[in-house]
Amino acid sequence: MVTEHSRHDTRLDRFVDSYSQRTNGMRVSAVRALFAVANRPEIVSLAGGMPNIKDLPLPEIAGSIADMITSNGTQVMQYGSGQGEPALREQILDVMALEGITAHADDVVITAGSQQGLDLVTRIFCDPGDVILAESPSYVGALGTFLSYQTEVVHVGSDEDGLDPTALRETVARLKKAGKRIKFLYTIPNFNNPSGKTQPWERRLDILSVCAEEGVLVVEDNPYGLLTLDADPIPAMRSADADVIYLGSFSKTFAPGFRVGWVLAPHAVREKLVLAQESATLCPPVFSQFAISTYLATQDWQGQIEIYRDMYRERRDTMLHALAEEMPDGASWTRPAGGFFVWVTLPEGLDSQAMLPRGVNARVAFVPGGAFYADGQGARNVRLSYCFPPADRIRIGVQRFADVVRRELEVMDTFGIDASPHELRRPTGPGPDLT
Amino acid sequence: MVTEHSRHDTRLDRFVDSYSQRTNGMRVSAVRALFAVANRPEIVSLAGGMPNIKDLPLPEIAGSIADMITSNGTQVMQYGSGQGEPALREQILDVMALEGITAHADDVVITAGSQQGLDLVTRIFCDPGDVILAESPSYVGALGTFLSYQTEVVHVGSDEDGLDPTALRETVARLKKAGKRIKFLYTIPNFNNPSGKTQPWERRLDILSVCAEEGVLVVEDNPYGLLTLDADPIPAMRSADADVIYLGSFSKTFAPGFRVGWVLAPHAVREKLVLAQESATLCPPVFSQFAISTYLATQDWQGQIEIYRDMYRERRDTMLHALAEEMPDGASWTRPAGGFFVWVTLPEGLDSQAMLPRGVNARVAFVPGGAFYADGQGARNVRLSYCFPPADRIRIGVQRFADVVRRELEVMDTFGIDASPHELRRPTGPGPDLT
Repeated sequence: MVTEHSRHDTRLDRFVDSYSQRTNGMRVSAVRALFAVANRPEIVSLAGGMPNIKDLPLPEIAGSIADMITSNGTQVMQYGSGQGEPALREQILDVMALEGITAHADDVVITAGSQQGLDLVTRIFCDPGDVILAESPSYVGALGTFLSYQTEVVHVGSDEDGLDPTALRETVARLKKAGKRIKFLYTIPNFNNPSGKTQPWERRLDILSVCAEEGVLVVEDNPYGLLTLDADPIPAMRSADADVIYLGSFSKTFAPGFRVGWVLAPHAVREKLVLAQESATLCPPVFSQFAISTYLATQDWQGQIEIYRDMYRERRDTMLHALAEEMPDGASWTRPAGGFFVWVTLPEGLDSQAMLPRGVNARVAFVPGGAFYADGQGARNVRLSYCFPPADRIRIGVQRFADVVRRELEVMDTFGIDASPHELRRPTGPGPDLT
Repeated sequence: MVTEHSRHDTRLDRFVDSYSQRTNGMRVSAVRALFAVANRPEIVSLAGGMPNIKDLPLPEIAGSIADMITSNGTQVMQYGSGQGEPALREQILDVMALEGITAHADDVVITAGSQQGLDLVTRIFCDPGDVILAESPSYVGALGTFLSYQTEVVHVGSDEDGLDPTALRETVARLKKAGKRIKFLYTIPNFNNPSGKTQPWERRLDILSVCAEEGVLVVEDNPYGLLTLDADPIPAMRSADADVIYLGSFSKTFAPGFRVGWVLAPHAVREKLVLAQESATLCPPVFSQFAISTYLATQDWQGQIEIYRDMYRERRDTMLHALAEEMPDGASWTRPAGGFFVWVTLPEGLDSQAMLPRGVNARVAFVPGGAFYADGQGARNVRLSYCFPPADRIRIGVQRFADVVRRELEVMDTFGIDASPHELRRPTGPGPDLT
């Protein structure tokens, strides 16, 4: 909408000619504006990726953090290491061991959330014009970061088991032939955001094998891996290949507000990451690191993950049952074995971006699929999240969503496919509703 | 030192051809390696910029943070706003009011420490090859960040009142004639790191006036402003010009471990900063923000700043007395009216970088002046900090430092000026010892 409002903003910005080229690519998405409205309590939000942390033992956490401050306050409130606190890096090895990873604490770099891990990895590897390969679809926050470094994101096709190794090989060959520099493959093998798909173990090995043959670095992002709802975790890709750069996070297994994630990287890469971290923030949040270290040392963190699993399992099952009951013919969706998200494919002819205002009007919010592609795909897709609202709200939300889809189909039947062009928006920052 | 060690590292790094151009400019400085040794307890470190937070009321802080978790845990441990928590942004207005700033909370962006403010400001404004003007000398951590964005840092001459407006005007003219794009002037008007100099009010107005005439944006970095030791704070540059981008921090007035700073920026710039923040970390540390908000609301934070002032005043006075008593003729130094640092100019012919190993050998650590220049100046300078060690250790440290200088002078008298070339090292990441 280049309207009165946009012209007004431009006129007010006396710095408009001073911004860097990367900044000129940053846009506030229309989705974000809608979500400001969608935060009203009467609206069921199936849009957000916020974990539900209501079951945390707050009094116990409060007590242990208070003890930590009283006994060690001048350390936990002081500057710390650019790489992150050594004790926490050791504890992170225990967390990663649950997914089959053997590593050394010296190769772990703590980051201000996993998002900063993405930022720093992109920073040390990517020049403008470099190519990053990503799943099809892929995490909106990663795409925003990749594009902010003026890279080109190329999506690789997927099937029901996630990223397709054959498509990967073809894409790499095509890009190399075109003279492109591929810097890495970005993949979320467990309960992909947004698709909810999981790569089986054999699939992971196939992908690693293609990447090794083609000399493509693998960046494995695994925020949800321990939130498996039906089975034990599948070992991480990093467990099979020490050259994989692995991104971990406490945001979903404990709480996101501390902003503590980590990167496990080969030694040489780790050194560059620490330099980049120091340039970005001097050191990752020190108090947060000690708070999480204290939590891991004093609380039953694995028991807490079990509690989270039970909660999310009920919500996922509720959403899948509601979808099966409510959705009209022609729609399909994924059945995630963990994580937070279901990926819906709408009946042919529907447009999820155009449908969003009608959804909000019907008091249900969701994320249109286009946000998860850098290239304009996803018009027929919707990401629904079951992580935050309780089961009864999920049921109501899915009913409303199905109603909106049905009405769209009726309109289409009456007037034909609405072929009016709609703007394809590239994702930028993800915002709290888009995690 | 391109020795066995460096070659070994390069051979091990199979990613060496994959890094971005900006990464190839990152180097671990020789200073950093020395500081690893310098952390031994027998060494008096006059190198670090760590605030001394021993006087914080730990039990009271522990109690208020525990209450915060018990009563509001699911909010303070959840994702938050990319711009930062609204309540804290309001409280920051009260902090800035102490230096004459009137602003709106909507124009404040919270950052993961002031260092991230520097990173995000550079990110939104600077393309490779753009020029950033900086004081002569300037903060090593800022220089590292600026260079990591492949900018060119040009130092502007200064006199006893800090940055010289006449030199500024000449530098701008010269650069414009050469076709350079100047993106902003970076200045620390209060108790400059490392020079300890303070711009008087009239000087600030003169600098603002030159920048307004020449269309140069001003970035005012003010981490130490409230740690004035002799007089009331001088109003911030931002108080005279709402187009100034102002960087603030709680690291020195409260504690650095929370990693909470902020940027106050004109509205259009603020919007870009929020997008950049979301891309970098989704949101600044939420728990930290609530912890600081709680501290400001429940503790006597202004009284705490008075306690800090008294502590730092004693230390500064101790250092200045010791320097006057101990230093040989031909050396000079600044007399800071606040902050953490004294800037020493060694007698002609001495080289501070070459002197550092001999200093560490004599059990005193300092930062050679070259770290605070992007262009190889500063060989005769040393930054001494009085913030962290207690007074008796400061006295011993200065004695040892003066002894080292004296011995260097004796060697020079005997053998003549050592004209052996020494590597000029560009700063990269600052590290905890270089804040």
